Amino acid sequence: MSETTKQSSKTLGIGLIGTGFMGKTHALAYRTAKAVMGEGVPDIKLALLCDTPADQAERMANQLGFEKATDRWQDLVSSPDVDVVSITTPNKFHFEMALEAIRAGKHVYCEKPLALTLEQALEMKNAAEKAGVRTMVGYNYIKNPIFAHACQLIGAGAIGRIVHFRGWVDEDYQANPDLHWTWRSTLADAGLGTLGDLGCHLVSMACGLVGPVESLIAEMQTVHETRPLPDGSGKAAVENEDTATALIRFESGVHGSLSTSRSAWGRKNRLAWEVHGTKGMICFDQERMNELQLYQNEGPVSEQGFKTILAGPAHAPYGNFCPAPGHQLGFNDLKVIEAATFLTAIAEDREASPNFADAYAFEKVIHAVAQSARTEKRIRLSDL
Amino acid sequence: MSETTKQSSKTLGIGLIGTGFMGKTHALAYRTAKAVMGEGVPDIKLALLCDTPADQAERMANQLGFEKATDRWQDLVSSPDVDVVSITTPNKFHFEMALEAIRAGKHVYCEKPLALTLEQALEMKNAAEKAGVRTMVGYNYIKNPIFAHACQLIGAGAIGRIVHFRGWVDEDYQANPDLHWTWRSTLADAGLGTLGDLGCHLVSMACGLVGPVESLIAEMQTVHETRPLPDGSGKAAVENEDTATALIRFESGVHGSLSTSRSAWGRKNRLAWEVHGTKGMICFDQERMNELQLYQNEGPVSEQGFKTILAGPAHAPYGNFCPAPGHQLGFNDLKVIEAATFLTAIAEDREASPNFADAYAFEKVIHAVAQSARTEKRIRLSDL
Amino acid sequence: MSETTKQSSKTLGIGLIGTGFMGKTHALAYRTAKAVMGEGVPDIKLALLCDTPADQAERMANQLGFEKATDRWQDLVSSPDVDVVSITTPNKFHFEMALEAIRAGKHVYCEKPLALTLEQALEMKNAAEKAGVRTMVGYNYIKNPIFAHACQLIGAGAIGRIVHFRGWVDEDYQANPDLHWTWRSTLADAGLGTLGDLGCHLVSMACGLVGPVESLIAEMQTVHETRPLPDGSGKAAVENEDTATALIRFESGVHGSLSTSRSAWGRKNRLAWEVHGTKGMICFDQERMNELQLYQNEGPVSEQGFKTILAGPAHAPYGNFCPAPGHQLGFNDLKVIEAATFLTAIAEDREASPNFADAYAFEKVIHAVAQSARTEKRIRLSDL
Amino acid sequence: MSETTKQSSKTLGIGLIGTGFMGKTHALAYRTAKAVMGEGVPDIKLALLCDTPADQAERMANQLGFEKATDRWQDLVSSPDVDVVSITTPNKFHFEMALEAIRAGKHVYCEKPLALTLEQALEMKNAAEKAGVRTMVGYNYIKNPIFAHACQLIGAGAIGRIVHFRGWVDEDYQANPDLHWTWRSTLADAGLGTLGDLGCHLVSMACGLVGPVESLIAEMQTVHETRPLPDGSGKAAVENEDTATALIRFESGVHGSLSTSRSAWGRKNRLAWEVHGTKGMICFDQERMNELQLYQNEGPVSEQGFKTILAGPAHAPYGNFCPAPGHQLGFNDLKVIEAATFLTAIAEDREASPNFADAYAFEKVIHAVAQSARTEKRIRLSDL
Repeated sequence: MSETTKQSSKTLGIGLIGTGFMGKTHALAYRTAKAVMGEGVPDIKLALLCDTPADQAERMANQLGFEKATDRWQDLVSSPDVDVVSITTPNKFHFEMALEAIRAGKHVYCEKPLALTLEQALEMKNAAEKAGVRTMVGYNYIKNPIFAHACQLIGAGAIGRIVHFRGWVDEDYQANPDLHWTWRSTLADAGLGTLGDLGCHLVSMACGLVGPVESLIAEMQTVHETRPLPDGSGKAAVENEDTATALIRFESGVHGSLSTSRSAWGRKNRLAWEVHGTKGMICFDQERMNELQLYQNEGPVSEQGFKTILAGPAHAPYGNFCPAPGHQLGFNDLKVIEAATFLTAIAEDREASPNFADAYAFEKVIHAVAQSARTEKRIRLSDL
Repeated sequence: MSETTKQSSKTLGIGLIGTGFMGKTHALAYRTAKAVMGEGVPDIKLALLCDTPADQAERMANQLGFEKATDRWQDLVSSPDVDVVSITTPNKFHFEMALEAIRAGKHVYCEKPLALTLEQALEMKNAAEKAGVRTMVGYNYIKNPIFAHACQLIGAGAIGRIVHFRGWVDEDYQANPDLHWTWRSTLADAGLGTLGDLGCHLVSMACGLVGPVESLIAEMQTVHETRPLPDGSGKAAVENEDTATALIRFESGVHGSLSTSRSAWGRKNRLAWEVHGTKGMICFDQERMNELQLYQNEGPVSEQGFKTILAGPAHAPYGNFCPAPGHQLGFNDLKVIEAATFLTAIAEDREASPNFADAYAFEKVIHAVAQSARTEKRIRLSDL
Repeated sequence: MSETTKQSSKTLGIGLIGTGFMGKTHALAYRTAKAVMGEGVPDIKLALLCDTPADQAERMANQLGFEKATDRWQDLVSSPDVDVVSITTPNKFHFEMALEAIRAGKHVYCEKPLALTLEQALEMKNAAEKAGVRTMVGYNYIKNPIFAHACQLIGAGAIGRIVHFRGWVDEDYQANPDLHWTWRSTLADAGLGTLGDLGCHLVSMACGLVGPVESLIAEMQTVHETRPLPDGSGKAAVENEDTATALIRFESGVHGSLSTSRSAWGRKNRLAWEVHGTKGMICFDQERMNELQLYQNEGPVSEQGFKTILAGPAHAPYGNFCPAPGHQLGFNDLKVIEAATFLTAIAEDREASPNFADAYAFEKVIHAVAQSARTEKRIRLSDL
Repeated sequence: MSETTKQSSKTLGIGLIGTGFMGKTHALAYRTAKAVMGEGVPDIKLALLCDTPADQAERMANQLGFEKATDRWQDLVSSPDVDVVSITTPNKFHFEMALEAIRAGKHVYCEKPLALTLEQALEMKNAAEKAGVRTMVGYNYIKNPIFAHACQLIGAGAIGRIVHFRGWVDEDYQANPDLHWTWRSTLADAGLGTLGDLGCHLVSMACGLVGPVESLIAEMQTVHETRPLPDGSGKAAVENEDTATALIRFESGVHGSLSTSRSAWGRKNRLAWEVHGTKGMICFDQERMNELQLYQNEGPVSEQGFKTILAGPAHAPYGNFCPAPGHQLGFNDLKVIEAATFLTAIAEDREASPNFADAYAFEKVIHAVAQSARTEKRIRLSDL
C-alpha cells in the first residue's frame, strides 16, 4: 500500500460565487473534472464559497465541500486562497464581480451572458486581456461531444459546402400568462429577455457551425405584456422580449435564421439547429442531446435516410465519462468538460475557449437582434 | 338482383389537362371520390384527357379510364362533354388555360400556384367570380383530416391564445449541385422558385391556423447560382430562389416566421409548423402526415408532455377511408378529399374552398416575400 | 380527339361480397388498380355487389360504382357476369363462400384469415388448386413497397446472415374492459382472437423476412375474461385470447419471437418487427408505414446509426402512386397493390402471391401458437 | 469568512476495487453524492483504491482522488481505514471479495451480477444478512427518476390494472462475428452471457414494475458459435448465450416476455419495456433515458395519444441535479443516486435497496431462463 503520488503542478484554489442552478453545476464540475478527464487537469482545492445570507453560504459550503464560506464576494475575489473565481450570480452582478476579480489577478469562469449590455461585456473582455488572466464563459452546450463531432463532420466535408442554417432555442419557463412578475421582466435587472437567457446559446452553436455573423434583420415581441404582481396589487409591464427571430447573413455568405422563445409550452430545452450543405444535412436537438442526425447523399437512393448517431466513445471526450456508447451524458457532464477545459488551459498557461472575447462576439449578435428589432433596420455586426 | 339506382343529380363530365404527377392524382381522385365519400358527391364521367403528344394522351386515357383523348387543350376546355376542367400542366400554362375554361363556362380545378405572377392570379380570380363558375386550387395539404383537427383544436381554445408561429417547407429535389439546368430555374417559365413550388403550401397552412398575414420582411437566396446545361455546353444561371425566409406579422398581431428550401438534403416533404399558444402548443410534420403533436399545460407537471395523436376516424373524414385509427392516409387520399370537396360544392351550387380567391390570398404572401427580399423592405400585404 | 383504344384482354367481371372495412377497400382498389399501375392490369367491370339487407347492398353498389346489387351471395358466386369473387365478410363465412365460388370456377380474393380452423383453410387451399382458379388473400401489409425493400435488402446481404427476429402486432380495439361482449369473443363465430385478427399479419411478414417456421412454444391469455352483455343482463365469457406470445424457431435455425395483443392501449396498428443480422439490423413499424430503419456496421463507428429511410420511387411500386419521395402511401394504397397483383396474375394466367397456399402456411403458425399455449408443449409445424 | 461546519456523523472510509468502466463510475459517484443530494448523505473519505498492477492502481488513485493505492484486494477489505467496499472487478471475483469484505465487517457495494452462479449469490446474501452489514448492488437503471415515476404512476392506477408486460435489453458489443474470443465467452469466467450482462438489468425493472416472477419458459442461442483466437491460431467455442427470450408469468397472474441480445447491431443500450394496463400503457427506452411514454384512455378519443414526458424536477431526485426540466441526466448520474442511497442507508443504519437479497431475487430469474432453455421445461422460481 502506498501514498498516492501528487502531481507537481500547483493546486488551484477555487472561489465560487453563487449556489443556484449554475453555482451547483460549477461545484460539481470542479469536484470531478480531474477524476473524469485524468492527466492534464490540475489538482484543485474548493477554497471559498460565497452566497447570501451567510448561513446559506455555510450550509452550501458544507454540502458542496468548500473549505470556507463568506457572504461578501469582495472577500472572495481578493482572497489569497483563491486562484480561480466562478461567477454564477444573477446576470446584473457579473460585470462588477468579474472586473474586481480580474483586478485581483484571478482567472475568471463566468456564466453567460457576460453582462447586461454590450458595453459592459466589451469592458470585461478588455480588462481580462489587459490583465492577462484566463477566462471562460458558460456556453456549456458547445462542450457536448456530439456537437464537437458535428463541427468535425462539417469541417471534413461530410455535408459539402454549407448553404443554409436554421436554429431555434425554446423553453416554457415564461409560457404561463399567470406567472408572477419578477426581476426577469425588467431591462434594468435582466437586460434582454429570451435573447439573453437562451438566444446567446444558440448563437454560440451557430457560430461554431457556420462561422461569424455579418448582418441581420430581426423582430422581437413581448407576448405576455403584463404579469400579475406577487402581492396581488395589480399588474406590471414586462419590459423585455418573450420571442425574437432574426434573418442572418453569415460572413461566409450563407443565409440563415435564428429564433427563440421563453414562452413555448412543452419545450424544456429545445436548442435545435439544422445545417444544410451541398452534400447532406446535420441536425441536432438538445432535448435529445446524445443524438445527432446526419443525412448524406451517398450510396443508393433507396437506402438514403437520416442517420441517428448515438454519442459514444468515438466522440471524445465521451469515453472519459463512459466507455460504452449510448449510455448518455447528462447536462452536468457538459459543465465538467467546460471546467476541465478551463483548468487545463490555466495549468498550461494558454487561452481557453470560449473565453470573454468569444462570449463578447456571441453576445454582439443577440444585442444586434434586439437593436434591429427596435429600429426595424438591418444591423451589421461590424457597426456595433 | 337489381340494377343500381342512379342518383338524380347531373353526371359531371370531367376534362383533365396533364398526366404528370398531379394529373394522375386528379384522375385517381375523380375515380374514387364518390366511392370513398358517399352521398353528396355527384356522379362523374371521365370524359376527356389532354396531353401531348397525342399518343401519350391516348395511352394515358386508356390507363386512367378517360373516354376520349386529345392533344389540344383548347378542344378540351370547349368540349360540351366537359363540365369540370382540371389543369395540372406546368405553371406557366395555368393562366391561359384557366381563363379559356372560365370563358367556356367550365368549373376549374387548378393546381397551385395559380399563376406565375400575382397579376395573372388576380385576373384568374376575377374572371372566375365574374363568370360565376366554381373553382378549386390544389392546396392539398390543408385537406388532411389531422390538419382540420389542428384548426378545430385551436378554435376550441386547446392551446389558448396564439402567441407565435413557425413554419418550414423543405425538399431536396434541387439540392444536388450537379443537377442539370431546366426550365424550373427560369423566371419566365417557372416564376418563383421554392416559394412557388413549396412555400405557398406552407402559407396555406399558416393562414388556416393563424389567419391572414399583415406584413413581412424577408430574404431569399439562390444557393446554387449556376447549373450545368444538359448538353454539356457549360453552365447557365439559376434565376429563381433556392431558399427564402420571412419574418411575418399576422393581422391578429401574432409574430412568426416562414422558411423554405428546395435544396435541403434529406427532406422529402418536410412541410412542418408549430403553433405556440398561451396554454399549449401544436406541431405537425407532413413527413409524418398522420400524426399531430399536442402539448397542453394541464394536469400534474410530472405527467405533461407532447402527445402524438394518430389520425383516425375521430378526425373526419378519415373514417370514410378507413374505420380503424392509425392505419394511415396517404398523399393521394388528400387529393380525393379535395376532389370530393369540389364536386360536392358544384353539385350543391356553392363555393368550394380553397377557391381562386383563397389561392390568390395565399400567393400574395409568397410574392410579398420575394418583393421584400428584392427590395430589403417590409411589405404590407394590403399594398400589393 | 379520339376514342380511347381498349386493351384486347378480357374485361374481368368483379363480384364483391361485403361492404364493411375490407369490402370498401376492395372496391376502391379495383377502381384504381389499372389507373395506378398501368399496362398489365386488365380492365375490370364492377359487376355485382352483395350485402344484406338488400337496400344496404343497393345503396353501397351505387356509392362504390357496382352495376348490380344482391343480398344473396349464392347468386353472386354463380353469376356469369362475375369472374373474380372478393370475400370480405366476417371470417366464419369465408369457408363456405370461397368453396362455392371455387366450385363455380371463379378466381377468389379472400380476406384473411382464410377460415376459422386450419382444417377449413386446408380444404379451401386444396379446392382452389384442384379447380385451377387463381387465389389471393388480403395480407396487405406485405404489399408495402418498403417491406419489399426490406426483403430485398436482406436478400442482398445488407445486414449479413440473420441471427434473430422479433415481431409484435398490437391494437387497442379490445383494450377497454367495459366494451360490450360481441361475436368476436366466441370460438364458434370468431375462432382465434388476436392471433386471427392481428397475429397472422405478423406471421406473413416474419415468413417473408426470415422464411418458414419450424417449431414454437407459446402462451396466450384472455386478460378481460368476461365482458358486459349489450342488454345489461350481466356478463358473458370471452372465449378467445387477448394476448399471445411465441418463442419461434425458423427452419433456418434462427430463433425469434412473436407477440400480439388486441388490448394494448395506444397501439392503433403497431405491426412492428426487427431483424438482427451479422452486419446490421432492419426495423419497421406499421404505424409509420412509410419508414424503414436500417443500421449497418459500415464506415467509421463515429458515424454509424440507424437510418430512417422514407419510402419513395426508389421502392417500387411507390412511384406508380407518386413520383416524389416522402409523400407517403396510405393503408388503402396497399390494397391497390394487392388487387393489381391479383388481377395481373389472372390476366397472365399464373399464380399470385400470397395465394391460398401461402395463407394456409401463415395460418398454420397461429394455430400452432394456440395449440402450444393450450397444451404447454412445443409444436412442430410439420406435425400439424 | 468562516470555516465550514462539519457534520457530526462519522466520515465513511471508501475502498474501491477495480478502476474499469464501473470502478470509475463508483469513484465519481462517491465524489459527488453529498454535493448533489445534500443533507442526509454522510461525509466520505476516498481511502483506498485497489487495482493491478500496482502502478495502475497508483495512477488511478491520483486521478480519482484516493488517498492510498494497493494491488492487493485482501489488504483493502481488511483495512481499518475502509468502512465501505465497492467491488467492480470482473464478475468471477465478486464472490470471494464480497465474502471476505463481509467477514471483515465492511458494508459492500457490489456490481451486478452478484456472482457467476445462483449458489454463490445465495451464499453472499446469507453472509451479508448474518453479518448485519449493509449491501447494495449496481442495478443502476432502476435509480432513474423517470423509472421511479413510472412505478409511481402504475401504483397510482394511471394505467389501471396491469395486463401484459414486454421487455428487451440489447447491445451490440458482441454483434461483430470477427471479434476475438475472450473470457466473456466462457462459462467458467463469465458464467451467463447476455443474461448476466444485460438480462438481469431488465429483470430488475420488470420486477419493479410488475412484481415477482412465478415461472417461465425460455430459449437461448449462441448465434456466433465460435470466435477467432487473438493469436490467430484458429477459433474457439463461445460457451454462453448471445440471445435469450422468456415467456414469463408473474406472481400476479400477468403474462409477459423478456428478451435480450448482446449481438444486436445498432443497439447501444436498448433497455426498453412496455407495461400494458386496462386504462393505458407506459413505455420506456434507456437509449432515451430522460423520456417516458404514457398513453391514457382519457378525454376525447380525437385527442388521445402517447405523451412523451421529459424528466424534470417533478421527478425526484432529478431536481437535485438540475432545477430545469428537459436538461437531462446522464448514465453516471444514476450511479450518484445509487451511491447516495447506499451511503444514506448506512448512515441511518437501515437496509438499502437493491441489496444482496434483491439482487439474488433478480438473478434467480436469469438463471431460471438459462435452466429452462437448457431443459426445455417450465421453471418455477420457487423450485430454484
